[in-house]
Amino acid sequence: MSTAVKEMLATYPADLGGVDRDKLTRCIEECVACAQVCTACADACLAEEMVAELTKCIRTDADCADICAATAAVLSRHTGYDANITRAVLEACAAVCKACADECESHADQHEHCRICAAACRRCEEACHDLLASLG
Amino acid sequence: MSTAVKEMLATYPADLGGVDRDKLTRCIEECVACAQVCTACADACLAEEMVAELTKCIRTDADCADICAATAAVLSRHTGYDANITRAVLEACAAVCKACADECESHADQHEHCRICAAACRRCEEACHDLLASLG
Amino acid sequence: MSTAVKEMLATYPADLGGVDRDKLTRCIEECVACAQVCTACADACLAEEMVAELTKCIRTDADCADICAATAAVLSRHTGYDANITRAVLEACAAVCKACADECESHADQHEHCRICAAACRRCEEACHDLLASLG
Amino acid sequence: MSTAVKEMLATYPADLGGVDRDKLTRCIEECVACAQVCTACADACLAEEMVAELTKCIRTDADCADICAATAAVLSRHTGYDANITRAVLEACAAVCKACADECESHADQHEHCRICAAACRRCEEACHDLLASLG
Repeated sequence: MSTAVKEMLATYPADLGGVDRDKLTRCIEECVACAQVCTACADACLAEEMVAELTKCIRTDADCADICAATAAVLSRHTGYDANITRAVLEACAAVCKACADECESHADQHEHCRICAAACRRCEEACHDLLASLG
Repeated sequence: MSTAVKEMLATYPADLGGVDRDKLTRCIEECVACAQVCTACADACLAEEMVAELTKCIRTDADCADICAATAAVLSRHTGYDANITRAVLEACAAVCKACADECESHADQHEHCRICAAACRRCEEACHDLLASLG
Repeated sequence: MSTAVKEMLATYPADLGGVDRDKLTRCIEECVACAQVCTACADACLAEEMVAELTKCIRTDADCADICAATAAVLSRHTGYDANITRAVLEACAAVCKACADECESHADQHEHCRICAAACRRCEEACHDLLASLG
Repeated sequence: MSTAVKEMLATYPADLGGVDRDKLTRCIEECVACAQVCTACADACLAEEMVAELTKCIRTDADCADICAATAAVLSRHTGYDANITRAVLEACAAVCKACADECESHADQHEHCRICAAACRRCEEACHDLLASLG
């Protein structure tokens, strides 16, 4: 998976501008992974006997999956680059990943899926902030 | 379509907080419509003979479709509401709708699909700002 | 909303082949509406006290929302048309709409959101079958 | 990335039925990777000077990205499993991956991004067929 993101970036036939390729690659990878993990965490929460105590977690997972998927798509495009779009979607992604990491961490001692999901969200939040900082 | 968004909002079984239901309904409707129109506009641009001059438009349409779809989904959920997520995604949606409206407007005199798309993006941008302003 | 789908179809600058424009328009509209309604129904189920009895409904709603959204996007594109893709995604969409309508109907007497959602899924299922039949 | 899909599957708190976990894991991974690669390939095609000859490729990439993303989400859920939904979406995913692989292969000698994308689509098509065959 890692390889494909980086490989595809290397084949882009036009100028990529001054973007930090390593930070961009990592951010796409984390967004893609986080979207999948959040979808799986929401479903695992649904299957818990204590589902009634996990409804906020299920909802935040769903939001996080949707925004991470949109962010991964935006970051995978370079043609007609618009810094305002990239910045806005990275800020939204960092916000939802922070919210989802915080929520999942509060269940992490009871549910392994929440522990793994919190870690994926935290990595994605950091990757968004790192890429944002590099955009100047 | 309008009816279903409003009807579903009316059936939500818990407290919706102080949200302005009319602004929320309109914003969901505009996001949903804008996502479809942007997808169709990107495809219509692809079918133009002068496609080489429309590549930025195609890309911005694709970003706008992805972010509007994610925003519509987030706004359609009320359980475990987190104002930080709602605000961040509305700001991203307003930013991409503004960029896409600006880009499509520059082709609107030549391409009817760009004219319709610019109008849909502008309505969605306004609906996002209206809802944001009402969140306090 | 209805208007925009039809309006955009009218602006497509190349040949649309022999597609039935009314059936195509209706199918896109039903897919777009069904995706939003299913997202809202899943969230309303999450907010019910008896959420533990609605987990299958929440899951099926989520699948239906994802597949309807993908189907709406595929149907909104006409460039480089491939009948195999259109048929396969319409069959998947009809299948998930049938499953979601069946599931939601079983809760329709207790939950108004499930009643509205079942109707939206049934309309979308029919629109997919109608369009499929017209493809020859 | 691989690890997270497998790890999350291992934390699912209820019965997974008789599903082949290795085939399911691989299929989710291939769908997730293929969605990202197709999004990047469409954008790389847009940036080619000969974009006018790549419009079918761009469109098929977009369809493939949308359907692979929906399939990855459906396969990441296990609660309230419905074999009809899983089969239908896997068949749609295999169909679009075959179409996209065929199209990208026809440009693979000229464009490295199409070569990589064709390979990703072919792997995903195979993974869908393998999982379908194992469902019995």
